[in-house]
Amino acid sequence: MGILSNESCLKMKEKEYHKVIFPLKLKLAELQRTSKDKKIPILIIFEGLEASGKGSVINEILVTLDPRSYRVISHNHPLEENTLPLKQYLEDIPGKGELHIFDKSWYDLAFQEEAYITRRCKEINKIERSLLRSGMLIIKFFLHVSKKIQRKRYFKAKKNPAKSWKVTPYAWKQNFNYKSIIRNWEDIIERTNNFNCDWNIISSNSLYGAKSEVFRIIVEKIENYLNQKEIRPDDVLLPYKKPYSLDNLDLNKTIDKKEYKKELVKLQNKISDLHHELYTRRIPVIIAYEGWDAAGKGGNIKRVVEKMDPRGYDVIPTAAPNDVEKNKYYLWRFWKSFPRYGHIAIFDRTWYGRVLVERVEKFATKYEWKRAYQEIVDMETQWSNNGSIIIKFWLQISKDEQLKRFKEREKTPSKQWKITEEDWRNREKWKEYKAAIEEMISRTSTNSCPWHIVPANDKYYARIFVLKKIIEKIEKKLYNI
Amino acid sequence: MGILSNESCLKMKEKEYHKVIFPLKLKLAELQRTSKDKKIPILIIFEGLEASGKGSVINEILVTLDPRSYRVISHNHPLEENTLPLKQYLEDIPGKGELHIFDKSWYDLAFQEEAYITRRCKEINKIERSLLRSGMLIIKFFLHVSKKIQRKRYFKAKKNPAKSWKVTPYAWKQNFNYKSIIRNWEDIIERTNNFNCDWNIISSNSLYGAKSEVFRIIVEKIENYLNQKEIRPDDVLLPYKKPYSLDNLDLNKTIDKKEYKKELVKLQNKISDLHHELYTRRIPVIIAYEGWDAAGKGGNIKRVVEKMDPRGYDVIPTAAPNDVEKNKYYLWRFWKSFPRYGHIAIFDRTWYGRVLVERVEKFATKYEWKRAYQEIVDMETQWSNNGSIIIKFWLQISKDEQLKRFKEREKTPSKQWKITEEDWRNREKWKEYKAAIEEMISRTSTNSCPWHIVPANDKYYARIFVLKKIIEKIEKKLYNI
Repeated sequence: MGILSNESCLKMKEKEYHKVIFPLKLKLAELQRTSKDKKIPILIIFEGLEASGKGSVINEILVTLDPRSYRVISHNHPLEENTLPLKQYLEDIPGKGELHIFDKSWYDLAFQEEAYITRRCKEINKIERSLLRSGMLIIKFFLHVSKKIQRKRYFKAKKNPAKSWKVTPYAWKQNFNYKSIIRNWEDIIERTNNFNCDWNIISSNSLYGAKSEVFRIIVEKIENYLNQKEIRPDDVLLPYKKPYSLDNLDLNKTIDKKEYKKELVKLQNKISDLHHELYTRRIPVIIAYEGWDAAGKGGNIKRVVEKMDPRGYDVIPTAAPNDVEKNKYYLWRFWKSFPRYGHIAIFDRTWYGRVLVERVEKFATKYEWKRAYQEIVDMETQWSNNGSIIIKFWLQISKDEQLKRFKEREKTPSKQWKITEEDWRNREKWKEYKAAIEEMISRTSTNSCPWHIVPANDKYYARIFVLKKIIEKIEKKLYNI
Repeated sequence: MGILSNESCLKMKEKEYHKVIFPLKLKLAELQRTSKDKKIPILIIFEGLEASGKGSVINEILVTLDPRSYRVISHNHPLEENTLPLKQYLEDIPGKGELHIFDKSWYDLAFQEEAYITRRCKEINKIERSLLRSGMLIIKFFLHVSKKIQRKRYFKAKKNPAKSWKVTPYAWKQNFNYKSIIRNWEDIIERTNNFNCDWNIISSNSLYGAKSEVFRIIVEKIENYLNQKEIRPDDVLLPYKKPYSLDNLDLNKTIDKKEYKKELVKLQNKISDLHHELYTRRIPVIIAYEGWDAAGKGGNIKRVVEKMDPRGYDVIPTAAPNDVEKNKYYLWRFWKSFPRYGHIAIFDRTWYGRVLVERVEKFATKYEWKRAYQEIVDMETQWSNNGSIIIKFWLQISKDEQLKRFKEREKTPSKQWKITEEDWRNREKWKEYKAAIEEMISRTSTNSCPWHIVPANDKYYARIFVLKKIIEKIEKKLYNI
């Protein structure tokens, strides 16, 4: 006896419905304007059985709302097959003051991939938890219909030429396998019923009843949110085993220039060959660069890509977010930049900005950056579990070496653009940054995505180090060595 | 003897190349920074034969540039087949201060669709003309290689396991049909060699020679642009046959409420049926709404979509551009919102903002809005020629009726949010707006995309008018009646 076996439903006649729905619609329209003004992101998710009237319910909501601030995103059509499926849902989440309706969502993904239900549900829970913490209101509906009424609706639709196309072989299959489908949905719903964003199961055996229930719940949820009655999931600070210290790193490692040149060409050719192998095997690679100002990130990246086919990689610089990005969940722009299968994305600075510059410069609150460790590790783990290679580098230089490079940049006309007032200001906060870096490395060096700390006082040494590590990681994935 | 028959090429040895390329690279890096500061959008297009070394040339440019402000967009993989192919290129154009490199471009589209070369080239010319006028620098390269050397490179690549995959059956076909392929490219190049963004044909028989030529030309073009030596295409003001006057419109048309209700349901059901027919036939539809403040656009749109399947339409409100949009060519955001095949996009205000609010409020310069008539008509014509239905409505109300509605909005609590200071300010400029509207209708009412002027003093009448017109237009396309 699962949660979907209860077939009780709110029965309602047309006349009664109109009386009930009118004030609810007025209220909802008003609440939407308020949430827009208060910059609350609202995500309403609809899942449900075939012929459960999802389209009709969604349309009733739409005609109530101001079209200037909602969007319906139908994930009903097949997803693109050239990148992580989760990415495609994440790209569509609402920003501040936006209301998005998902017609099918990441839950449909879990449902379609029956063998992975457990893993998918865990991933979804982590994503929703993170979105809830960021201040999003998530309302989830499952529209339920009995086997008998589903079949009745199919027969009725078949008689209408404009609707008969909806009764696909897939729809019939759902009716034949009704029980096992219900069981799978019950499994998904039970696994994802938490964090105060629990499922609302609506029987649509009576469509008027279902519609009025949906409206009532949306109005109630938004009101509760506005009155701060919603409980957000707790923040968690990701623990670590032992603290990492940069002081123990040997920065005196060097490589002879002649040796460097020889190695460089050899390794670059190797990477170029592996790049093609990755392409044929459709494995996405993320290379993440972090490091002190003037640590040599730019030059290092250049050497990595120099012999690669430009069709297969992207260098993604991470600057301060623009106003579209600022309006969204902070990891949104990185999900968006996730590469296609078989492609390489090289990030020049990354999502770790949250616990580095945003922490030190106080662009993020203490609560925001403290919970980010867990959220970032969750994201990387999802990428990695889904078959991607993730390689993270911290380019470390000494404070003296940085000073030397700053001064050299000031002297050299072709390099002056590289040095700004901001670099000098950041340098003054060396100690705060160092603490943030060490905490970041301690907390986010996981088994699947460890940090690689690169001694970079000698640029040549750093470049060879990075090239070798990338090759090692890719070969490990490709040949399991 | 076409323009590609000349096989002369700049021959260069490795040592000489390094001497030549070093100062060019330094210069290019500097010019890129200057163009970024001066907010110039730069588009570099690469087309060429197989094995002409496109990838290698592009990569040489990339390692020269600051990765923070370029992007390579490879249009080498097959395009998505669910929307206008031109849209997918337009989405990728650079914004102010950005440098984008197209590895294959809209020219490849023209080349692939041999039967449409003439039409495609005309469309491309119009798009490039419009981009050039907007201040973009466009540099086009065609990399040429002789039949003999192409074959030689294939054989060499076949021996290298990491490169042999590049020698596809398609590549061989190109070598066998070398002459006819050259003829098609000559045709395309000759048709699109204009507006001071002419083709640079580079023989890559010597790869070092080709690279140094490409660098020399890019440096020269950017320098010329910065020194204002580039000549932009002239602005054109689209002529019209006879001026349109709103004064002749009969605004007293009404419909009885009972009659309205009956008609409404009938027409809504009809549209819902046609919507499915459009979906199966994969025809995209654009419905564009413009009208005075309080003319009833929102309510009108609601009635149109009320019975439609929400999976098949989008309502796109057009507000002031956000900072990403502001940074791009002004029609970029509308190309981006072009619907998928079989879908309906309803624009609540449109690209005509350029010649209405942006003109009256002086957000656009006189030169900008004057040339916009032609550019907008070009865009609509391209959409229409490629199989879309475009329906444009102007909702007209009298000045008195507007005042009545404003006052009513102020009195009704649930409508107060609809009326702002700005509405009152716009009302004071009634005369300027009227002149702009009339000029817009006169200049942009074309055979394929005429304006439909809707008498909207009676909201019911306006809704029925719009529904009927949409049905008429869709039926005309579907059944050719």
